[in-house]
Amino acid sequence: MAIVVAEKTMSLDGFVADPSDGVEDLFGWYSNGNVEIPTPGSGPTFRTSEASARHLRKTLVDAGAVVAGRRLFDLTDGWGGSHPIDVPVFVVTHHVPHEWVAAHPDAPFTFVTAGVADAVARARKAAGDRTVGIGGADIVRQCLNAGLVDEIVVNLVPVLLGAGIRFFDHLAHTPIELEATRVIEGRRVTHLYFRVVGPG
Amino acid sequence: MAIVVAEKTMSLDGFVADPSDGVEDLFGWYSNGNVEIPTPGSGPTFRTSEASARHLRKTLVDAGAVVAGRRLFDLTDGWGGSHPIDVPVFVVTHHVPHEWVAAHPDAPFTFVTAGVADAVARARKAAGDRTVGIGGADIVRQCLNAGLVDEIVVNLVPVLLGAGIRFFDHLAHTPIELEATRVIEGRRVTHLYFRVVGPG
Repeated sequence: MAIVVAEKTMSLDGFVADPSDGVEDLFGWYSNGNVEIPTPGSGPTFRTSEASARHLRKTLVDAGAVVAGRRLFDLTDGWGGSHPIDVPVFVVTHHVPHEWVAAHPDAPFTFVTAGVADAVARARKAAGDRTVGIGGADIVRQCLNAGLVDEIVVNLVPVLLGAGIRFFDHLAHTPIELEATRVIEGRRVTHLYFRVVGPG
Repeated sequence: MAIVVAEKTMSLDGFVADPSDGVEDLFGWYSNGNVEIPTPGSGPTFRTSEASARHLRKTLVDAGAVVAGRRLFDLTDGWGGSHPIDVPVFVVTHHVPHEWVAAHPDAPFTFVTAGVADAVARARKAAGDRTVGIGGADIVRQCLNAGLVDEIVVNLVPVLLGAGIRFFDHLAHTPIELEATRVIEGRRVTHLYFRVVGPG
């Protein structure tokens, strides 16, 4: 059964983007090394340290489906119709963007209007024994509140942003107990893996 | 010259205490192992994992003085007149608590009314070539904003608290660039060391 993984690159003070959705101060580790990691789909080729490459390869290989929020979908214009890591995408939305669907007939995108739990269930099915990645701070929050997250991965960047969009915000049923399972020290990033144990 | 270290135990979502100043969900690592670490002063004996003991011994041995805020001082009633790690304490305050001073004539406490920079300068002098520890989220914020912090140590606990008092809040001059210098994996805690590089 597919496990659900929430992975984000986060500043030490908890932000995954600056107030303008900018990630310039966070995403440097994707390109500060010599190891080339091509993304399976339309994404860029990453150039990371050897340590981060170990982390990234696993993430890319393991991924079997993605659940994304409508905000992220709109921000990226649906990644032009093909997700960077080339897996089926389940977009949680109130309204299906019929024009976009018509313009991208081959895009492996499913628009789910019945809520995040339904989107995760469908993504699990599509992912088989691979993982379901969830994207967007709001989707992560909804999934955490619904007890749908199995693993959290934080790519911790040594910077204090001071303001922006938080990875973890407006959580219900706290404290949520985690278990630290793995640490990988990259260059200007520390990859921290956690299993979600559940509300305490 | 003494370096200034801000060390706190923090949840993955950035809180150093719950909304009622409680730390029950955070301080477990101080007593979840077999290695006894007596504090030099009036503090308790810690019982930690071997990894956390390495971290804690260094912290205790290195400390030469502490700068604390008035809120923490009041919360602990000045630690009964003797700081847990038995070093000179510089309390940043608007008003000297004359009654408390009279009741604790031997306490190595200095009440500084000229602001946090003055308190840090005095603490540096007292610490010699050891470190100055700064305590209290508000003092850390003021010191970060004034460019007075050399090192940040986060004892990261695998829990999401959802609410409480943040380690990093209301920062000025952001982004503040850090350099990750060391990671120690303890039991239910990961000790993360950072050098403060400065505003970007």
